[in-house]
Amino acid sequence: MNIAEIQDGGVTSAKGFLAGAVYAGIKKKAKDVLDLSLLYSESPCVAAGTFTTNKIKAAPVILDQQNIEKHGKARAVLINSGCANACTGEQGMANAEATAKKVSEVLRIPVEEVMVASTGVIGVQLPVDKMLEGISKIKLTREGGQNLTRAIMTTDTRPKKMAVKVQVDKTEFIIGGTAKGAGMIHPNMATMLGFLTTDAAVDQGFLHQALLSAIESSFNLVSVDGDTSTNDTVLLLANGQAGNQTIVKGTLEAEAFQKGLDQVCQYLAKSIARDGEGATRLIEIVVNGALNSEDARLAARTIACSPLVKAAVHGCDPNWGRIIAAAGRSGAAVVQEKSDVYIGEMGLLKSGMPLAFDKKAASALLNREEVLLRVDLNLGSASARAWGCDLSEEYVVINSEYTT
Amino acid sequence: MNIAEIQDGGVTSAKGFLAGAVYAGIKKKAKDVLDLSLLYSESPCVAAGTFTTNKIKAAPVILDQQNIEKHGKARAVLINSGCANACTGEQGMANAEATAKKVSEVLRIPVEEVMVASTGVIGVQLPVDKMLEGISKIKLTREGGQNLTRAIMTTDTRPKKMAVKVQVDKTEFIIGGTAKGAGMIHPNMATMLGFLTTDAAVDQGFLHQALLSAIESSFNLVSVDGDTSTNDTVLLLANGQAGNQTIVKGTLEAEAFQKGLDQVCQYLAKSIARDGEGATRLIEIVVNGALNSEDARLAARTIACSPLVKAAVHGCDPNWGRIIAAAGRSGAAVVQEKSDVYIGEMGLLKSGMPLAFDKKAASALLNREEVLLRVDLNLGSASARAWGCDLSEEYVVINSEYTT
Repeated sequence: MNIAEIQDGGVTSAKGFLAGAVYAGIKKKAKDVLDLSLLYSESPCVAAGTFTTNKIKAAPVILDQQNIEKHGKARAVLINSGCANACTGEQGMANAEATAKKVSEVLRIPVEEVMVASTGVIGVQLPVDKMLEGISKIKLTREGGQNLTRAIMTTDTRPKKMAVKVQVDKTEFIIGGTAKGAGMIHPNMATMLGFLTTDAAVDQGFLHQALLSAIESSFNLVSVDGDTSTNDTVLLLANGQAGNQTIVKGTLEAEAFQKGLDQVCQYLAKSIARDGEGATRLIEIVVNGALNSEDARLAARTIACSPLVKAAVHGCDPNWGRIIAAAGRSGAAVVQEKSDVYIGEMGLLKSGMPLAFDKKAASALLNREEVLLRVDLNLGSASARAWGCDLSEEYVVINSEYTT
Repeated sequence: MNIAEIQDGGVTSAKGFLAGAVYAGIKKKAKDVLDLSLLYSESPCVAAGTFTTNKIKAAPVILDQQNIEKHGKARAVLINSGCANACTGEQGMANAEATAKKVSEVLRIPVEEVMVASTGVIGVQLPVDKMLEGISKIKLTREGGQNLTRAIMTTDTRPKKMAVKVQVDKTEFIIGGTAKGAGMIHPNMATMLGFLTTDAAVDQGFLHQALLSAIESSFNLVSVDGDTSTNDTVLLLANGQAGNQTIVKGTLEAEAFQKGLDQVCQYLAKSIARDGEGATRLIEIVVNGALNSEDARLAARTIACSPLVKAAVHGCDPNWGRIIAAAGRSGAAVVQEKSDVYIGEMGLLKSGMPLAFDKKAASALLNREEVLLRVDLNLGSASARAWGCDLSEEYVVINSEYTT
């Protein structure tokens, strides 16, 4: 089994996937701005999706969820930024359906195989006419993944994309994807927009299961601000153009597919944390020695979410007290006398007691682009890894002036 | 029944309570700084306490909890700021005990009736010698509550204190208190340091129950940053000097006592939210029409905690989408089509659909010192009220440079 990253890979790296994007007039006009994009597979796909757990769900989320659960297929995804189409009532649902219908007409595919995704401000209706016009102008190309990745960005500062080539025996296939994140990012379900494609032929049941599993160890372990959006969606399309035998659960190929998918999702999840609103650093939190896996995840996620931990990292302040206090309030079993805390490889707390440490050196470890915080609970053998970012003044500036 | 606020009232308003404070050298020396204070009742008290739910508990928390649970009495409380005595192991516990012992010797009271409370940096041992010296210098006076209130502050910018006189039939008693908050404030248990006193004679069982009840509707509904401290402690001492018949559960006097205690606790809780680190405004969140009380509390607390809501209020941005999205992810039953959102009395969302509203006027409502956000879920008849504060750049500045 071999999994290799594809240079400059993304959502159209897998065979048969095309994409394109235009400026349709949804966002305010700025230089080089794109706000409407389309992903398309030249051949039919089986598909899987995961959606926000927020009880307030945007119209596109409701529509996609119905279609995926009913048909398990998707061949195109229309994505707009600048407007979330959330809290928009019946009109919002009609608008989502109208844009899906237009895509189905232009591409001559069944409307239930057209997914739609929106991101942006809540409570505003989509400018449907502009979008219908925009849809007909989108040029689909093999290189179009790059533009799609740019077009789905909101407060993201960097495009996020990734693809891998997976080889297992004589089978070879590609898994790629793109995501947008930045704000309203919190572990639990999709937590952002993510679009994944593969040219592997995959059994739909296994595809769904593989996506859930990948998300558990990637997007669901990322936190920017503890807020879960109304629009979170991750879609995975598999068109089978690699010509492999359909991958089913329990095989070596399934294992390889899962590994490849995990890698793509984890890369994208980390990219989201790194590019959190106002973030200057990626924080990776490792919790070892938890009583069970749920506890490990709980502790890691709670540390990743703690505003006090995030602010301390921002200020390069080795305030380990905040790290162990976050673990202590997480709900996970924590025994003070057994707990160790590390920044990188430097131990700060051992068996619940502070160690003497070089503050300057610890501070320098917090000043890296990637900061590692580790808690060893020494109660069991379960581990988890979560990702977050530092909390800067810039986060507040971005989020205090979003709609006005 | 009559409950009247006492002007300039505080923790020594009730008969027989004395307090005092000194600079013992725990904090760095600055003008007028106090860091060690003592509360004392001239006569024995029954006492109740609530303590942090964090699994990492500071030594003073462990010590007080043992004493209160075993004896239900307390006659003195020694409080230091500048050092939390958390994650300090056996030495930390020995230090807490040594300071309690000194107080018991100076005041000639049983050591198990001396409570200790600490707040400040985690992982540093108390400067015990300085504290023992400081203890013997503290002058206890009836006016000393003012200095105690100042001495317990850390990043608080304002002292927090309150007292009420309760009259019910011919019975009259006083309930007063003081608190410190600012950072690491999150609903669930005591969430800060709070010291409450009353000259009423109160049955210990009822006292405990009344304290738990008061905290549920006050300190547990306040959030500054979602972090629960290792040191949270609220103590309530009742010395009976009002000469009333001992208040027991189920009487009119008990009802009056509860009302007075609720009022003091809610005032202190709101003061903590208003004075959250970097806060410029108090946000009051009201959730009506929830299916049950737990849901109402959950939704109100989640909105109070949302960094996106807090940042939007800071920027006077009437971004109601964030308010309803926070309710939607709270875990409470929320039906989009039934939900209404208000800023003050201005409706922004009705039955899940945005209303046209005057953005300037809405923005002005967010620019008040006290901001009211209201969500009507229209699913049942339960309500809850929670308090928080806006999220400012200043919060980040304060918390990125705490230990260094």
